[in-house]
Amino acid sequence: VPTDEQKEHDFLWRIHPHAPRLGQITIFNRSHYEDVIMPRVHRTFPAGVVRARYDDINAFEHLLAESSTTVLKFYLHISKEEQARRLRDRLADSTKQWKFAVNDLHERKLWSRYMRAYEKAFSRCSTPEAPWYVVPSNHRWYRNLVVADVLCSTLEKLKLRYPKPALSPAELRRLLREIA
Amino acid sequence: VPTDEQKEHDFLWRIHPHAPRLGQITIFNRSHYEDVIMPRVHRTFPAGVVRARYDDINAFEHLLAESSTTVLKFYLHISKEEQARRLRDRLADSTKQWKFAVNDLHERKLWSRYMRAYEKAFSRCSTPEAPWYVVPSNHRWYRNLVVADVLCSTLEKLKLRYPKPALSPAELRRLLREIA
Repeated sequence: VPTDEQKEHDFLWRIHPHAPRLGQITIFNRSHYEDVIMPRVHRTFPAGVVRARYDDINAFEHLLAESSTTVLKFYLHISKEEQARRLRDRLADSTKQWKFAVNDLHERKLWSRYMRAYEKAFSRCSTPEAPWYVVPSNHRWYRNLVVADVLCSTLEKLKLRYPKPALSPAELRRLLREIA
Repeated sequence: VPTDEQKEHDFLWRIHPHAPRLGQITIFNRSHYEDVIMPRVHRTFPAGVVRARYDDINAFEHLLAESSTTVLKFYLHISKEEQARRLRDRLADSTKQWKFAVNDLHERKLWSRYMRAYEKAFSRCSTPEAPWYVVPSNHRWYRNLVVADVLCSTLEKLKLRYPKPALSPAELRRLLREIA
């Protein structure tokens, strides 16, 4: 939940400082998409406010892409039936009961509103430089496979190399001999 | 001068955290415009990189405006002759010599490049929601008058009011009597 100080700033203010430095990876959970999903589902703002935010998000992710940050976005979709199964499991299993929140049942009633809000966000904010991946996630092994595949192929395309050593090969050999 | 950590982020990363909270005023000096002026004057980046930044700046200032932040931008222009006068004064006056930097003379040689870079930034990044004011500043009294006038009329348009007291008028009167 955003703090009072965060609420008194633009909605990207709390996100931007966490953008990763070159060579680093950051994992965001929901982050700024929360600010276009929740207001649409709960109708806390007029639709125009949310529409303006899609453009803000695209401009923000473009800024990151411009400065050589790769942005990947994954939506892990489970079906409504699968959600029912998981909620029942949580209630029945004493090692999972701590995860259960009554509010989950309230939000579940808004399922179709959530789906519409997600669809809208993906269609407005999926760009070639910051694409959304909708991952069928009823089966964890399949979800993991899809996400890992995207991550690996993206990392491979970066053609990462080890930094050049500060020493010449001759010097490296000399020092190796010295140590031995 | 940006730190290494700042250089390894997008150019707005070091600016955004300082955006004022609602009800607050922040004064920025050069800030993100430094990142479109200096590269054009010193040709440190290709022109395309700077062009993309004008759009980033507009999107960023739009984001601030959207969240009820008023953005005013002032360029305090002095003529080349006035600059010569001020530099001579600094050199001649022992109480001002500490302000003198040899680099100022190097940058002065790039005067016309600076003017072109400023013009470009103002024409690309002056928007109704975040306008640029070019203030004739050879005379300090005139500069101060223009800036103060813009600030005052902007503040007046905000129609600021004192917050409503937590107590009713009747209660306020009762408490006043009690104190007396």
